[in-house]
Amino acid sequence: MQINELGGEFALIKKLTNIIPSQSKDVLVGIGDDAAVIKSPNNKNQFLLITTDILVEGEHFNKSWSTPEQIGIKSIECNVSDIAAMGGLPTFLVVSLVIPPSTNVEWCERLYQGFAYACNRYGIIIVGGDTTQGSVETINITLLGKVSDKNLCLRSNAKPGDILAVTGELGASSAGLNLLKSNLPITPYLEKKHLTPECRLDAAKDLAPAVNAMIDISDGLASEVNHICDNSNVGAVINEKDIPVHQDVLNAGKTLNKQTREFVLNGGEDFELLFSISKLDLEKLKQTGVKYYPIGEITNPGEGRFLITKENDRIPLLGGFKHFG
Amino acid sequence: MQINELGGEFALIKKLTNIIPSQSKDVLVGIGDDAAVIKSPNNKNQFLLITTDILVEGEHFNKSWSTPEQIGIKSIECNVSDIAAMGGLPTFLVVSLVIPPSTNVEWCERLYQGFAYACNRYGIIIVGGDTTQGSVETINITLLGKVSDKNLCLRSNAKPGDILAVTGELGASSAGLNLLKSNLPITPYLEKKHLTPECRLDAAKDLAPAVNAMIDISDGLASEVNHICDNSNVGAVINEKDIPVHQDVLNAGKTLNKQTREFVLNGGEDFELLFSISKLDLEKLKQTGVKYYPIGEITNPGEGRFLITKENDRIPLLGGFKHFG
Repeated sequence: MQINELGGEFALIKKLTNIIPSQSKDVLVGIGDDAAVIKSPNNKNQFLLITTDILVEGEHFNKSWSTPEQIGIKSIECNVSDIAAMGGLPTFLVVSLVIPPSTNVEWCERLYQGFAYACNRYGIIIVGGDTTQGSVETINITLLGKVSDKNLCLRSNAKPGDILAVTGELGASSAGLNLLKSNLPITPYLEKKHLTPECRLDAAKDLAPAVNAMIDISDGLASEVNHICDNSNVGAVINEKDIPVHQDVLNAGKTLNKQTREFVLNGGEDFELLFSISKLDLEKLKQTGVKYYPIGEITNPGEGRFLITKENDRIPLLGGFKHFG
Repeated sequence: MQINELGGEFALIKKLTNIIPSQSKDVLVGIGDDAAVIKSPNNKNQFLLITTDILVEGEHFNKSWSTPEQIGIKSIECNVSDIAAMGGLPTFLVVSLVIPPSTNVEWCERLYQGFAYACNRYGIIIVGGDTTQGSVETINITLLGKVSDKNLCLRSNAKPGDILAVTGELGASSAGLNLLKSNLPITPYLEKKHLTPECRLDAAKDLAPAVNAMIDISDGLASEVNHICDNSNVGAVINEKDIPVHQDVLNAGKTLNKQTREFVLNGGEDFELLFSISKLDLEKLKQTGVKYYPIGEITNPGEGRFLITKENDRIPLLGGFKHFG
């Protein structure tokens, strides 16, 4: 059976997870959240976080569009985004690099300058790695982090009645990528959002003590809402009219003759945060001054996952970006 | 400049390490040992270890020679070997997987059965990962471990006068690989040593409290001796006649018309341990019953690194397996 016949990336992960030892009394959360949460033997109020991402040339980045510095920065940001989504702070990382033997040393140095720039932004120390040759440039980052029990945010903690909200405008990375793929001109805003996105660790520190569930938007809003619903055993309804979208994304939709909704729901790589919060805690959040956009509500499990479109149609919220789709 | 003009893998790593933030008061050992050693905030006698390895089809494994189970097992063993070399115990890991979209689901399941087999052997829990598509099968493992201050073994701790010793026969993995590459028949011993090597975590627990420096032999004996000498600022002399070599490796040398010495010094992937130990501590080690083979001695820094050949020639100990060589 091929992977797409099985149902794609998430169906494969589910099948493979059943094979391996993944449960332990020392593991609070294993496979299935933005990062794993491991108990500390000597401090029950502090957890170790671990997340990993592998980026492949032609799949996750493109040397013809991105400078090596941009590739380096984005590799770090997408991992920090996972730690942010747990309510944590990043600490140490290891990086593995596959490069063709013909690679210029300067290209590697500029890639590492990108790593350094992003690591310095967050106080991350690079403690090790592996460098090897291969035909396709591939970067694997494993990032550790730490989080207190009070700040820990899981996908599994959403409650019916919670407000669903996001930290910023969505769809820009995907709109930018689609313009680049079509060799069309790209605005500075879309270029920045696609080539050097910044994760929302800044917002996460204010959100973490107040919210119930949190996840980073790396595979598109639809996918992330479904992850929260799956893990929390709840339903959700999203109002399309409330989703913040930049004018450049609307314009890109017109230029490309694509629905803006596609960029927002299924595009991915926005690296904003999606969270659920009790209405009672909204006031506390407002006091922090962090900017957020309510886009919907968590509902009871039997009520499914829906999008109310701008045309006021109620459609099932399916999908999100999937490999092997 | 190309990487081979710079001097290959280790010269590149040195250049890149200078670019990134790699020092911190919380990091006891960063880049440059088998694993990084991170201090615990709440226990000064216990350290966190972290190591990572990336394996690429056609470079580190070959689907036409290895079953998916064998690839899975070897991926885990080579990381556990790094933790063993620090004197530590493996705990948790994350795995990233790149596979072509055409990959059969059964192949992935069998790979994961290999992961499960090796993880169960060592009590390792898989807590997360990333699965994505790409043209070349690539596996990245990041393994965490733990070690007490009493058992921590660094490359940098060898002392002039120490005995250098290894835990087992060398050269078999490389001899096996060379036979496979030449489409020649391979003995069961060489096949096992190349396709499903077992690391020496069993020996490491006895060695760790007694030895000075320790390293795993993943890039060939010559490379590992040089790493210990570089990091400890010492010299070394190795007696070729004392290096344990299996009869099948000697036979493979004859069949392939290659010097056995090449497999031993520059072959790699033996996953035995190389260690230096004070002569005063040898008695303590003998009492544990662990099997080891003295092969040479640590000398003063100015005395260089040499091999005394079977013909009693004194030749510089260069090289070891390097990517981008």
